Amino acid sequence: MDQVIIQDVHMNGSTSGTSYSANSSVQKRAIFITRPIVEEAILNLLSKLYIFAATSKLRKPNTIGIAELGCSSGPNALLAVSHILETIYNKHYRSGSVTPEILVFLNDLPGNDFNTLFKDVGRFCGELRRSNGDGFGPCFVAGIPGTFYGRLFPSDTLHIVHSSYSLQWLSQVPQGIEKTNKGNFYITKSSPPSVITAYLNQFKKDFRAFLECRSEELVNGGRMVLTLVGRSSSDPTSQDCCSFWDLLALSAHDMVLRGAIEKEKFDLFNIPNYFPSTKEVKSIILSEGSFTINQLETFHVNWDGSDPKGNANSERVNNLESSHYAANTLRAVSEPLLANHFGEEIMDELYGRFRERVAEYASKGKTKFTNLVISVTKMEKDL
Amino acid sequence: MDQVIIQDVHMNGSTSGTSYSANSSVQKRAIFITRPIVEEAILNLLSKLYIFAATSKLRKPNTIGIAELGCSSGPNALLAVSHILETIYNKHYRSGSVTPEILVFLNDLPGNDFNTLFKDVGRFCGELRRSNGDGFGPCFVAGIPGTFYGRLFPSDTLHIVHSSYSLQWLSQVPQGIEKTNKGNFYITKSSPPSVITAYLNQFKKDFRAFLECRSEELVNGGRMVLTLVGRSSSDPTSQDCCSFWDLLALSAHDMVLRGAIEKEKFDLFNIPNYFPSTKEVKSIILSEGSFTINQLETFHVNWDGSDPKGNANSERVNNLESSHYAANTLRAVSEPLLANHFGEEIMDELYGRFRERVAEYASKGKTKFTNLVISVTKMEKDL
Repeated sequence: MDQVIIQDVHMNGSTSGTSYSANSSVQKRAIFITRPIVEEAILNLLSKLYIFAATSKLRKPNTIGIAELGCSSGPNALLAVSHILETIYNKHYRSGSVTPEILVFLNDLPGNDFNTLFKDVGRFCGELRRSNGDGFGPCFVAGIPGTFYGRLFPSDTLHIVHSSYSLQWLSQVPQGIEKTNKGNFYITKSSPPSVITAYLNQFKKDFRAFLECRSEELVNGGRMVLTLVGRSSSDPTSQDCCSFWDLLALSAHDMVLRGAIEKEKFDLFNIPNYFPSTKEVKSIILSEGSFTINQLETFHVNWDGSDPKGNANSERVNNLESSHYAANTLRAVSEPLLANHFGEEIMDELYGRFRERVAEYASKGKTKFTNLVISVTKMEKDL
Repeated sequence: MDQVIIQDVHMNGSTSGTSYSANSSVQKRAIFITRPIVEEAILNLLSKLYIFAATSKLRKPNTIGIAELGCSSGPNALLAVSHILETIYNKHYRSGSVTPEILVFLNDLPGNDFNTLFKDVGRFCGELRRSNGDGFGPCFVAGIPGTFYGRLFPSDTLHIVHSSYSLQWLSQVPQGIEKTNKGNFYITKSSPPSVITAYLNQFKKDFRAFLECRSEELVNGGRMVLTLVGRSSSDPTSQDCCSFWDLLALSAHDMVLRGAIEKEKFDLFNIPNYFPSTKEVKSIILSEGSFTINQLETFHVNWDGSDPKGNANSERVNNLESSHYAANTLRAVSEPLLANHFGEEIMDELYGRFRERVAEYASKGKTKFTNLVISVTKMEKDL
């Protein structure tokens, strides 16, 4: 696995103008849209645990293990976790029982800003106690540094796994494509078939490894809800997923033309992302064989973080403003990678040009991210 | 609990001249000296686990839980953990069995530099795999931010708890002493009895809370080995523990005299440390009642980090050099606290004066830290 890339796949740190903290409303919206799916998964799991406990088929767990994979740091890092804990608490509160102890694992690559995250954890735990009172059993929070494409947790430790906007990041750029994908940062209409195959194969390999590892770590009947950027079209070169990295490549190409970026450096760069279709994801889950699929669908988030199904009047509908949000969102998630390859000093110009190109593109009315949400259950092999 | 103090009790960060990383050879020596005690604890625990497993009295654990409390970051953070893992591995290797999965929790306060620690964890895990090969079961490493004077882990999760050079740090400065301990930073010969009592009571309260929390978190028969700075004498004002903070107070007083530190600020400062005797520790363990004592004794480490029992010729015996080591060691552990109270800008002068006073003191031949090592077993209530 390419350690260089693994180090650089992290969001922009701190809380400044270009930080992930200040530009994560798209990711936040996705967490809110998928919340009912996460709730269904938790309630279903808890029911099973209690039914099995009553019939002695399964010991009621002393500790419920929850993992948030690719948590990053900033306002979203603990948002999904707080929804999960609230759901567990409400379920127990309604049935008059005390919540079991909960161990939350927050995972991201070692380059993530865990120091900032851990400062938020202190506040988070304090608020939990204040809002839920004594009926809420102890909740413990641990950080787990490492790639989720390998094992992270002991066997049979986790009950609920959640991950949002992380699994589109591959473990590495597909090998060999730097020679065949010159001039592009990702798959485009002009990419040769070998590039498309290489990206898909890398995603297949990574996502399968992810499923294999999690199936060891989840208890039987354990649930995963995974949200990632994907595509609606079966065509991997379709605009609903490829356009933004294409616009970034065009912006960098402008700088090649004026001599600010070396042509060779430009040609060598590719983004370790893949935006799969539901069909591709389904096929990998079925062939891996550890999970049954409860739900697998696409949904959209507007580039400015608003819900396309929401009331348009209450949301930002200005395309220019919306496009600036999109450009900042994409800068926050890609800058560490590009800064490492092209150098810190040209980032402001590059992303300035990118912002203009995104605005022009948005003026044609295309202003949505496509996402996949996957809800699966670990098959109950031994029951 | 005083959150202000809790934030500041951490070692000097980074790897510069005054950092904890560069000035932790005293702590390193203590880890080496206590290694046989840690080994005995682990081997005893493993034997019991396997005997009970054979007689069905206790399930052989799927996962062995290890906690390193107050780990800090730097070269010592993973040193004791690597000894613990090596002992577990060798025991299983000799008996021809595969090691169980191991989950290591690295704990410190949220202000600790977990980012640096987690970068070292990646290297550490890679080296483990290389040196031990496939016979070594998966080992997972998590960070746990929080105070060890409260609950940190779910119940019945830990098999081995280790802590070195951390438990002399109190959860807060004993309340009320700022009015009665003017002119001192810690207990001295001139402290009124109320100050000595306040310090001892704070230690009693904190250490008892520590034992209560760990007794929930450890499995029956689980082991703890704790090393902390203490004293040989029954007298809490004896020089073998009080001298270094007294020398620091005298150095600060020099600066009060020349107007560089306000008298009022100086009077208000006290160090949240307590250096107990074995008798005091024993009494708290027995009255708390969850642990049996396997070993409780004092040992010494020279101020320069060498072993007083070692071959003098092979060690640094120059008192001046030794005293500089001591001054740097004490600066690395106390500077964040003092910088917060007195201001960053006077730290170089303060610790410069401290270094001179330590050198003068060392010239009289007193150049040892007194430590306590405590090895205990959680009583097997349910067996």
